[in-house]
Amino acid sequence: MQELKEKILKEGLAIGTEVVKVDRFLNHMLDVEFLERIGKEFRKRFEDCEIDKILTVEASGIAVACLAAQYFEYPLVVFAKKTSPNTMTEDFYEADARSFTKGTVSKFRVSKNLLHAGEKVLIIDDFMAHGEASLALTEIVKQAGGEIIGIGAVIEKGFQGGSRKLRDRGYKVESLAVIREISDGNIIFD
Amino acid sequence: MQELKEKILKEGLAIGTEVVKVDRFLNHMLDVEFLERIGKEFRKRFEDCEIDKILTVEASGIAVACLAAQYFEYPLVVFAKKTSPNTMTEDFYEADARSFTKGTVSKFRVSKNLLHAGEKVLIIDDFMAHGEASLALTEIVKQAGGEIIGIGAVIEKGFQGGSRKLRDRGYKVESLAVIREISDGNIIFD
Repeated sequence: MQELKEKILKEGLAIGTEVVKVDRFLNHMLDVEFLERIGKEFRKRFEDCEIDKILTVEASGIAVACLAAQYFEYPLVVFAKKTSPNTMTEDFYEADARSFTKGTVSKFRVSKNLLHAGEKVLIIDDFMAHGEASLALTEIVKQAGGEIIGIGAVIEKGFQGGSRKLRDRGYKVESLAVIREISDGNIIFD
Repeated sequence: MQELKEKILKEGLAIGTEVVKVDRFLNHMLDVEFLERIGKEFRKRFEDCEIDKILTVEASGIAVACLAAQYFEYPLVVFAKKTSPNTMTEDFYEADARSFTKGTVSKFRVSKNLLHAGEKVLIIDDFMAHGEASLALTEIVKQAGGEIIGIGAVIEKGFQGGSRKLRDRGYKVESLAVIREISDGNIIFD
């Protein structure tokens, strides 16, 4: 998606060889007018797909998932929680997601009341790196007995192998901008 | 907002005398089609106001803030972060928000790059209890030298005094559904 690549080049910040910060429109500040077009593009990429629910993970995935829902037929959006609030008393599905960037492991949790067997689920995430977050979301859908329609990522760091890992498992993956390399403050796309 | 009250009664869950769970449309699963009408209602409540930015806090505030932005003239949405990711290397504004329900104190942080002196800011939150989260957000706007246009909450637990605390400080507060009492699994509105 050319407009997204231009936005990343204009407003993103490359740090070292692994990190791209897009705080100005996706990860801290949200440019809703722009993200609507991201949502529309996801619809195009999954055009013929029937979707019952969109699954994402807090926090940055929420905006994109909601704006995408507007271009599908308003499937309910479920976001996995990374922490277990004291109000989460019911049973939940759980999967571990390792963050290589942060060197941590998060537990993703989704209440069993919110995902059901047979539901067709589209997974949406803001950033795909090693694919661990998306993989954890697929685990949760599988625990619920749902069907994974595909995985959409706004930005993918292609050199970290996330989409390959997910495609090897048979999933359709659509990344709207794939970064091939980050070096000397430059971002190079596929 | 009558439709919201009915939604809370139909899909919400009252626990004890202090907690209402609205995981089915606001706090874990997001009913985007419904939340659009929440966004539209916020526009009505702040009809004549010029807004440069909407400020909220992760995670549940994000959906509502984004959908509200669509009914204003697409102000940028900034969400305060509750944790400090290792990629947050720049200077930030910071304020403490105590959660009486959880018995914890969160640090809300907003990068100094994203809020500026003179900006007119609408604060949006999903739930208002003792008002501590909204108060922390007003602190952040003040640190930035911005102007607080008002505070919008989807649901307020009126008996916990949040909006009174904020109005005493001179802020315009609009809560779309005010809960007067929770008891025996019943939710009673103002």
